[in-house]
Amino acid sequence: MSRLSERAAKNLHLIRQKKPLVHNITNLVVMNVTANALLAAGASPVMAHAQNEVHEMVTLAGSLVLNIGTLSEEWVTSMLKAGKKASELGIPVVLDPVGSGATAFRTNCAKRLVENINISVIRGNPSEILSLAGQDARTRGVDALHTVDVAAESAIMIAQQFKNTIAVTGPTDFVTDGRRVIRVLNGHPLMSSITGSGCMATAIVAAFLAVDSDAVSAASTALSFFGLAGEIAGRDSSGPGTFMVRLLDALYSLTPEALERGAGIVES
Amino acid sequence: MSRLSERAAKNLHLIRQKKPLVHNITNLVVMNVTANALLAAGASPVMAHAQNEVHEMVTLAGSLVLNIGTLSEEWVTSMLKAGKKASELGIPVVLDPVGSGATAFRTNCAKRLVENINISVIRGNPSEILSLAGQDARTRGVDALHTVDVAAESAIMIAQQFKNTIAVTGPTDFVTDGRRVIRVLNGHPLMSSITGSGCMATAIVAAFLAVDSDAVSAASTALSFFGLAGEIAGRDSSGPGTFMVRLLDALYSLTPEALERGAGIVES
Amino acid sequence: MSRLSERAAKNLHLIRQKKPLVHNITNLVVMNVTANALLAAGASPVMAHAQNEVHEMVTLAGSLVLNIGTLSEEWVTSMLKAGKKASELGIPVVLDPVGSGATAFRTNCAKRLVENINISVIRGNPSEILSLAGQDARTRGVDALHTVDVAAESAIMIAQQFKNTIAVTGPTDFVTDGRRVIRVLNGHPLMSSITGSGCMATAIVAAFLAVDSDAVSAASTALSFFGLAGEIAGRDSSGPGTFMVRLLDALYSLTPEALERGAGIVES
Repeated sequence: MSRLSERAAKNLHLIRQKKPLVHNITNLVVMNVTANALLAAGASPVMAHAQNEVHEMVTLAGSLVLNIGTLSEEWVTSMLKAGKKASELGIPVVLDPVGSGATAFRTNCAKRLVENINISVIRGNPSEILSLAGQDARTRGVDALHTVDVAAESAIMIAQQFKNTIAVTGPTDFVTDGRRVIRVLNGHPLMSSITGSGCMATAIVAAFLAVDSDAVSAASTALSFFGLAGEIAGRDSSGPGTFMVRLLDALYSLTPEALERGAGIVES
Repeated sequence: MSRLSERAAKNLHLIRQKKPLVHNITNLVVMNVTANALLAAGASPVMAHAQNEVHEMVTLAGSLVLNIGTLSEEWVTSMLKAGKKASELGIPVVLDPVGSGATAFRTNCAKRLVENINISVIRGNPSEILSLAGQDARTRGVDALHTVDVAAESAIMIAQQFKNTIAVTGPTDFVTDGRRVIRVLNGHPLMSSITGSGCMATAIVAAFLAVDSDAVSAASTALSFFGLAGEIAGRDSSGPGTFMVRLLDALYSLTPEALERGAGIVES
Repeated sequence: MSRLSERAAKNLHLIRQKKPLVHNITNLVVMNVTANALLAAGASPVMAHAQNEVHEMVTLAGSLVLNIGTLSEEWVTSMLKAGKKASELGIPVVLDPVGSGATAFRTNCAKRLVENINISVIRGNPSEILSLAGQDARTRGVDALHTVDVAAESAIMIAQQFKNTIAVTGPTDFVTDGRRVIRVLNGHPLMSSITGSGCMATAIVAAFLAVDSDAVSAASTALSFFGLAGEIAGRDSSGPGTFMVRLLDALYSLTPEALERGAGIVES
């Protein structure tokens, strides 16, 4: 067992024990599944986006998720407000730059968030991460056009530039703070056939950040937990409907001990 | 069989027969599951929040749900508009003050709705109900910090003050109009591991109100129906994913006769 | 095997191969299930509604879905913007006039969209289609008050007036461009017990339009595919929860060959 496998087990145990409140300002497509994934994992989700309350809600939270999947101007304002308050209070923030690279509006919003908020972890697919690096990466909707390996170099560069942790997810996940480099091997092909698997991964990273102040450790153990739940859910699944149901069951049932045994986290 | 068990069966029969239209102005997290729960129960859901149409939509409805789970200023305006029209026309309104107590904005919005609309039933968890009572109750996200018993006294007080019916839900549900006091024993622990179980309960209360003008009877029979469906769904469920699927199946399959037999409604 | 059954198989094959991007500006209730249905079928969904980006997002898309189920003024503006850009570029647009006829606002919005955008296919239930025909058709929420047969004549008339294809769905679906008249016999009664089955059908029509420029052929083969998946899902389903899960599985698993064998498409 590696040190990170043990840490994964410890983090999951802490989440089940402390039930940290995770404040989500997230997209309209995945709100329900994200809330359910967080609840199943043992955290307490709250979704709140009103400019009148985000600064107050975030003070109650163990971490904050900003997800730009169905962005509009008002929501960006709320994200900035909540994110700045979180930065002030030292509450960890996770950014999911969904579709960054697909339109100028999304790319610019993602960059504004990165520049104005102290973000702990950015979790995205390769093309989204590449778009933040200013490369000419066009996201095709929410799909990845670039492999994790191609994005890896950019991720290290962005991590160093913005001084945060980057998590690039795909068949193999890749986590870096610009110095340490971790690969997470857990996962299942059916994850890409349901909507919101990336968004759920982001939210789970936030839950882990609420109990683990080391962003590289939190992100890689969270992705291992989520990926392992996906592996369990994928066994004998007849399609994405069944897979989604079993994924929630697995997030709920997976024990710290089983996570420690099944975690595929490789530090290189 | 108690009189309320018989009434539960009768109400469910009427919903299946009349398919009442339930107009929901509800939160973004639970719109889909709420619509599905209403459909499964036999009602006709409609979700509409535009200020341009809520006053017209509500005139077609048998009842109105106002749920502040993902509130913003514009939605409050729509809720007030729809609620006032409903009050005018004698259409029953159910309020779900999700997260009231967590932020000043939510608490104030909930109070504005209570003060400006003729609300038949307020359905919430103990901390939400306590927040309406003006007590220093901090909601931890959407979780309950206070037990139903602690909230019971406040519920009776609020019911008397606002002249409506209060339904406090938890392991045991508690329904009062300030005079009558009902306890509903149906339910299952997995209900708290899915998002929207409270919101679905509220919507089911609205469906029952559309066929039963006695708010105490409508609320307690609705909660018994919803809780019994939860009990059926919870048998052998391997987690919240499976539970949610089976809950919709149970809401759909549960017969008035089985409800009459299984209802755990106690008038004290 | 009819020519349209073969075309159904070919279209499904093309979707799995090309994974066309379908841009959805759709309602808040069905965003998640619509995205999942498109993914399961093999297409790439993107949901984007911001006025700042819809014109840019739609240029990446193979087709555009406009669904007015939870309309507000800002969203109509976005729909017009995206729809006009799509018209300009020759990208096919599908309109789902959810609830048109229920309120003046909805009916007027649906008509504004029809008048200002080059719409390929309008998919609705009978009362929604009737409302576009200017008849005194009151939609009861999202339920159909009128049978497909009553709406058929109006559909032919609207199709001729607006020069597009109308798809009226119900126990039997009816597709016409004002000249050709197709009936699709596939489907299952449980489809009406889940929310969003009409909206999913509309999105699937959009996916088929991205690979088949003949709107009558695209709409009828899409509805046959969706209906056949419903038949498979409905076998032994214990209720709407199970049905929804199996529907996604069936959309994912159904092969072009099985579709060709099972398609019930009748040209009269």
